[in-house]
Amino acid sequence: MWFLCATMKVEIITIGDEILIGQIVDTNSAWMAKKLNDIGATVERIVTISDGMEEIISAFADAEKRSNIVLVTGGLGPTKDDVTKKALAEYFNCDFTFYPEIEAHIARLFARFGKKMSKINSLQAELPSACQPLQNNEGTAPGMWFERNGTVFVSMPGVPYEMKGLMREHVLPRIKEKFNLPTIVHKTILTMGMGESWLSERIEDWEDSLPTEVKLAYLPSPGRVRLRLSAFGKDEVRLSSILQNEVDRLIALIPELVFGFDNDTIESVVGDLLREQGKTVSTAESCTGGLIAHKLTSISGSSDYFLGAVVSYANEVKMESLGVDEQNLIDFGAVSEQVVIQMAEGVRAKMKTDYAIATSGIAGPTGGTDEKPVGTIWIAVCGPKETKAKKFLFGQNRERNIEISANTALNLLRKTLITSNLK
Amino acid sequence: MWFLCATMKVEIITIGDEILIGQIVDTNSAWMAKKLNDIGATVERIVTISDGMEEIISAFADAEKRSNIVLVTGGLGPTKDDVTKKALAEYFNCDFTFYPEIEAHIARLFARFGKKMSKINSLQAELPSACQPLQNNEGTAPGMWFERNGTVFVSMPGVPYEMKGLMREHVLPRIKEKFNLPTIVHKTILTMGMGESWLSERIEDWEDSLPTEVKLAYLPSPGRVRLRLSAFGKDEVRLSSILQNEVDRLIALIPELVFGFDNDTIESVVGDLLREQGKTVSTAESCTGGLIAHKLTSISGSSDYFLGAVVSYANEVKMESLGVDEQNLIDFGAVSEQVVIQMAEGVRAKMKTDYAIATSGIAGPTGGTDEKPVGTIWIAVCGPKETKAKKFLFGQNRERNIEISANTALNLLRKTLITSNLK
Repeated sequence: MWFLCATMKVEIITIGDEILIGQIVDTNSAWMAKKLNDIGATVERIVTISDGMEEIISAFADAEKRSNIVLVTGGLGPTKDDVTKKALAEYFNCDFTFYPEIEAHIARLFARFGKKMSKINSLQAELPSACQPLQNNEGTAPGMWFERNGTVFVSMPGVPYEMKGLMREHVLPRIKEKFNLPTIVHKTILTMGMGESWLSERIEDWEDSLPTEVKLAYLPSPGRVRLRLSAFGKDEVRLSSILQNEVDRLIALIPELVFGFDNDTIESVVGDLLREQGKTVSTAESCTGGLIAHKLTSISGSSDYFLGAVVSYANEVKMESLGVDEQNLIDFGAVSEQVVIQMAEGVRAKMKTDYAIATSGIAGPTGGTDEKPVGTIWIAVCGPKETKAKKFLFGQNRERNIEISANTALNLLRKTLITSNLK
Repeated sequence: MWFLCATMKVEIITIGDEILIGQIVDTNSAWMAKKLNDIGATVERIVTISDGMEEIISAFADAEKRSNIVLVTGGLGPTKDDVTKKALAEYFNCDFTFYPEIEAHIARLFARFGKKMSKINSLQAELPSACQPLQNNEGTAPGMWFERNGTVFVSMPGVPYEMKGLMREHVLPRIKEKFNLPTIVHKTILTMGMGESWLSERIEDWEDSLPTEVKLAYLPSPGRVRLRLSAFGKDEVRLSSILQNEVDRLIALIPELVFGFDNDTIESVVGDLLREQGKTVSTAESCTGGLIAHKLTSISGSSDYFLGAVVSYANEVKMESLGVDEQNLIDFGAVSEQVVIQMAEGVRAKMKTDYAIATSGIAGPTGGTDEKPVGTIWIAVCGPKETKAKKFLFGQNRERNIEISANTALNLLRKTLITSNLK
């Protein structure tokens, strides 16, 4: 190890106009940040700049002042608009060196596709002399590793799978070898059913009593709040035990809100429960328009427990395909306890499943009344023993109402599955 | 207008640890960059920093030196880890002002959900005195507009739909009013059915002959390629006419690939055609698992033409709910021309619609065979006169296969609707 630092600061610099004009979303930085975080390195800044010499060199200088490691992606293609390599040579005040073994690698890549290497591709074997080349097994542009005054600069192509290959094969292992990294342990608790502000009030005392090594972050999204706990230090066993203790205390405070951990989704949790219990499910969807079925079937292997769905947008479909009584539609309307219960029981009987979910509501923006404003959603869950229905009042935004309704319906099924298993 | 500039430089600052640790991808910046680009403003830099006072203030100072407009997102939630507001007050060297009308707005938002405002939410009505508040109709955290020495700072919440609402209602109109922006005219042509590289070869001669004022950008996404044409200059009428001429030339080259323009989606185009023709549709979905129904119903008013769907994941549901012959399932399998045709005709008869779409395929990653590899998808479209089925071979990725299948199925219905209208 050539030097130690308490917190290892990383800056990511992304070069490319296509991000600045909104043509593509920068998914590389999030991927790199996650991998770095996993090995205990902290990304302090992500900067996206355009393909200009001056811009690039000034971003390098700023980053060197702040960081131990600067990871640069983009701007290494063979076309004219890519100037990163020139900027690196100028920044490190060096000439170019030609690497015959890199040229041979590029020629092999072309041969693999039955093509001949062009002149501009051959130029990709010319690199700033100050760098150590990193072989790119996925493409023609090599990675480059520079060191100066204790700061490491790494330049990689912006093509996601090329960058990922270089990170995995060269950059992450070298960083682990060169730097004495702290240990970070994370655990994310997934909650549903309470907004961020109420949740924060409810767990305020616990949050205030967290040990100094543990940090809490709120990550809200429609209908859900993820709570991420991170513990920083040296001793992984000790940190994991501290973290688990806090996770246990948190769950005890909000047991009815927690539906999963880390990379779980409500549909994966429900799917796992159904599979474990050997049960099947179907859905009858009005306002959610098929989104619950889509979520359930987005999981590979869901055909083991999901048999089918009826999307009953029209009242005729509710009657003919699900057996909803016309009189109930007349007396109570489609958005009612009576109808949503008949929908759930109807699809369960029709598809011969153990459980069924039904939704009927006013997603908006039109269709609301004084009695049933936009955002009014009835959800029913029907099981072997009973059918339960519940009314919700969400917001004004159609897309959000559909999303939250689908997630809430899946969560109600999850609760039913857990309760029925305890009995 | 209070000042003019040849190129209006914008910097976006995103505050939040969740991006720096790779927990979420920053999609806000791309959206904002695109909207700014559309009105002729240039995003020169996107910076992501953590939730720390010092970090935030130093990023503000750097940005002010470089930019005419600094757009800041994130860090405005009611919880303790959000320090943006304090940083803004310190940076603009001002106190806080309490806005009773904002508190009333927050209280109204809570009342809408039948809930009482909490103490910390009430604090969201306290803003740095130097700012002009921007009403956030989608959430509790107001936007803030600051001006100093010719630079505008705008702070918005990081929740995407709140940020988008504030941008649309306040920020973009104010920027257009305050700054003398160059004229940019855009037109985006939406295509489906040919990959980016083939498409670029097919339109190469046209692209090479584009006038200097016109720029072309390729925006690929699963199953689609959007071609954005932008004309830059001063005279809007002239630019529009140049652009329209190029759009017409392009369409003449690839008439069968173009399905819409600008903000159209395949589901909105299909919905408009159905409405115009006074026709209805239903879907029978196996591999798409309800996604076609979800897409169709994501559009407000879709109940005018979409009556319902059967998601028939299990073979029993295909037989009982759609009338598929058991013998066909045995002889040809669920992923076959015979079955997908019966699914489409079955749901059309059952739901009494004019048209019906059906899908049956192997989304993967498991379930493929030599004869029917992962990515094999049958799609049928059934109308008053005939039923047509077509086989596709997409890729290995489940999510992508489901998405492309749904879009392709909707596009086949679009072609059927156009042809039937011509007859």
